[in-house]
Amino acid sequence: MFTILKKQPGSGARTGIITTPHGQIHTPAFMPVGTKGTVKAIKPEELVEMGAEIILGNTYHLHLRPGEELIEKMGGLQKWTNWNRPMLTDSGGFQVFSLGSEKDYTGGEDEATKTGVKITDEGVEFKSHLDGTKHFFTPEKVMHIEAKLGADIIMAFDECAPGTSDKAYAKGAMDRTHNWVLKCKKEHELIQKDRPENAQQMLFPIAQGVIYDDLRVESAKFMADLDLPGIAIGGLSVGESKTEMYHTLDILQPHLPENKPRYLMGVGTPEDMLEAVDRGVDMFDCVLPTRIARHGTFWTEFGRFHIKNAEYRESALPLSPTCTCYACRNYSLSYIRHIFFEKEILAAMLLSIHNLHFLLNLAKEMREHINAGTFPTFKKDFLAKFIIPSGNKS
Amino acid sequence: MFTILKKQPGSGARTGIITTPHGQIHTPAFMPVGTKGTVKAIKPEELVEMGAEIILGNTYHLHLRPGEELIEKMGGLQKWTNWNRPMLTDSGGFQVFSLGSEKDYTGGEDEATKTGVKITDEGVEFKSHLDGTKHFFTPEKVMHIEAKLGADIIMAFDECAPGTSDKAYAKGAMDRTHNWVLKCKKEHELIQKDRPENAQQMLFPIAQGVIYDDLRVESAKFMADLDLPGIAIGGLSVGESKTEMYHTLDILQPHLPENKPRYLMGVGTPEDMLEAVDRGVDMFDCVLPTRIARHGTFWTEFGRFHIKNAEYRESALPLSPTCTCYACRNYSLSYIRHIFFEKEILAAMLLSIHNLHFLLNLAKEMREHINAGTFPTFKKDFLAKFIIPSGNKS
Repeated sequence: MFTILKKQPGSGARTGIITTPHGQIHTPAFMPVGTKGTVKAIKPEELVEMGAEIILGNTYHLHLRPGEELIEKMGGLQKWTNWNRPMLTDSGGFQVFSLGSEKDYTGGEDEATKTGVKITDEGVEFKSHLDGTKHFFTPEKVMHIEAKLGADIIMAFDECAPGTSDKAYAKGAMDRTHNWVLKCKKEHELIQKDRPENAQQMLFPIAQGVIYDDLRVESAKFMADLDLPGIAIGGLSVGESKTEMYHTLDILQPHLPENKPRYLMGVGTPEDMLEAVDRGVDMFDCVLPTRIARHGTFWTEFGRFHIKNAEYRESALPLSPTCTCYACRNYSLSYIRHIFFEKEILAAMLLSIHNLHFLLNLAKEMREHINAGTFPTFKKDFLAKFIIPSGNKS
Repeated sequence: MFTILKKQPGSGARTGIITTPHGQIHTPAFMPVGTKGTVKAIKPEELVEMGAEIILGNTYHLHLRPGEELIEKMGGLQKWTNWNRPMLTDSGGFQVFSLGSEKDYTGGEDEATKTGVKITDEGVEFKSHLDGTKHFFTPEKVMHIEAKLGADIIMAFDECAPGTSDKAYAKGAMDRTHNWVLKCKKEHELIQKDRPENAQQMLFPIAQGVIYDDLRVESAKFMADLDLPGIAIGGLSVGESKTEMYHTLDILQPHLPENKPRYLMGVGTPEDMLEAVDRGVDMFDCVLPTRIARHGTFWTEFGRFHIKNAEYRESALPLSPTCTCYACRNYSLSYIRHIFFEKEILAAMLLSIHNLHFLLNLAKEMREHINAGTFPTFKKDFLAKFIIPSGNKS
């Protein structure tokens, strides 16, 4: 269930609440990613302290190891991972191409076959990136896997065509995705009948269309007509430019259902989140905050910085003087720089906490400003200070 | 200051309290090791929750990187590392041989020179294991380094001869250590005069003697006569057998000062801690709990186990059903096994928490049983259940 709380005049931005069997999610929401059943280097209690209300699990990874049967037997993904709160699983539609292929897959059925991925109308055959074994995902099968994992929000199986795909292939992938979502919906309805009322899952479809306006609009309309409890925008942040991404969100906005949460998959960066919320997006997920943290990069209100910077050697300041996260409350740049050089696990822990807190806090501030009607000014002020690295694609 | 609370009749075991400028330490105490300024994969708050009252820092490592000047400038090791509680630094006397040599050093001055370490009566020249640069530690220099690091308890510079050293070399190393501790004491007294009253450091000497009874007794008596606020037993758990270690503790016991805390360096395993407390030891440190944790090994009351065990795949049980640590309260064997296989940082975090909690809890139980007069039964019952791997040297 989705309730809209407030709309920002002069913008697509809005605040809302999604209600799930495991609790409520305030939107706009950033969702930390726990690919293999843990948000890397972070304990669930730390996520709660940072204000995370929902996290992700990846169907592709969890299916391959340890397998959904085991997770179901252990009481489901939430209980097993000690995250007894709202959870979302993706469908593997992105990973079967990005990880299940033998080399970089750039789009096209022939190209897919060459890289070890076979796409048919029934589904996708791919190779496990772990051991090369062959696997086959169909829309129906993915619904069963996600049911066993047991997340509150589950994603329909889609074909995520690369951002550089030609139009013919983009259309083929979109048509298959439309065909598959119908199969997903049908199977999902059958599965949910057998689940208790307090474990009903919400199925979100994923609209595709690469960067072709007419395909994007067609796909958004198709998905909206299904009247499922939310809608996702897939296939962005996968190789296209920032300009193309923002343009696509612009043309999509009038065609997305008003009263459903809109989820922009795989985004983001602080700047992309601000731009997308302005264009009516409610939900985000991204591995970026924890991934760049493990490599020593952190965000502040002034942009992206690297902990190796020699200026930090003797700095008693925190990562960011305006930040209230655990790392900033307790440690200096000098200390975090030292333990990062020493390859101490605590460095990954502290920088991950800081970066996740930064995006979760950005989402919180966006909600506060939308509720106060001051989102446009907040966005402008934020982006005036926040330096985006040149050529940085989200 | 050391206050003895209770002595166990029929045993050398006793409980006590060490008072330092940063707080009190209840003995017998296990001290987690934070080699480079962090206990690996652990936050200070987690150590507090587990009951740790004091942790270690390594002078050798911190001197090489980032250097004691920086740490002093940042307010000292406690403030810098967010551990505003009692701390101990070792003297580097062990590391200059174990890490500062180019290959395994097995004892003897000629042998030392061959491996890149030069021992003279003035001190030790060694090579940094980081970049091969030459460094020279003298007793006086080590006192200045440890003063800058600022721990509450600091160790005298010693020559830690390997457990396999012949008697002539063992005696030479012991004599040098005796010569050096006098220099340490003198320099230490000068340094402390310049420090404020609430930052006075306690210097502990380190008795040596390898496994030669007469040398051990001679060294213990020599160190006891210095009337410093504690005494450490060095050079055990460095290649000798368990039988030899326990025998050495037996013959040392009558010669250790009654009213000073006795610190057995680099120990231990659960079984060694029990045997040593029975022989009058009050303090321990060891990297074992966190090191084996990162490799997937954990302790329970029944011994050592490995998380990869196939039987754990579907086990909803915790690492140990009798354990109250954060990992055991919240996660199953099945889950920890999965994230260990996936090389997730959380696996190292959870297993490190569990193993540290295990030793800290063992120390707590020993204190409770000594206070209740039931230590001998507790020790017997513990060792009857706890299976020690065959050939396992501590």
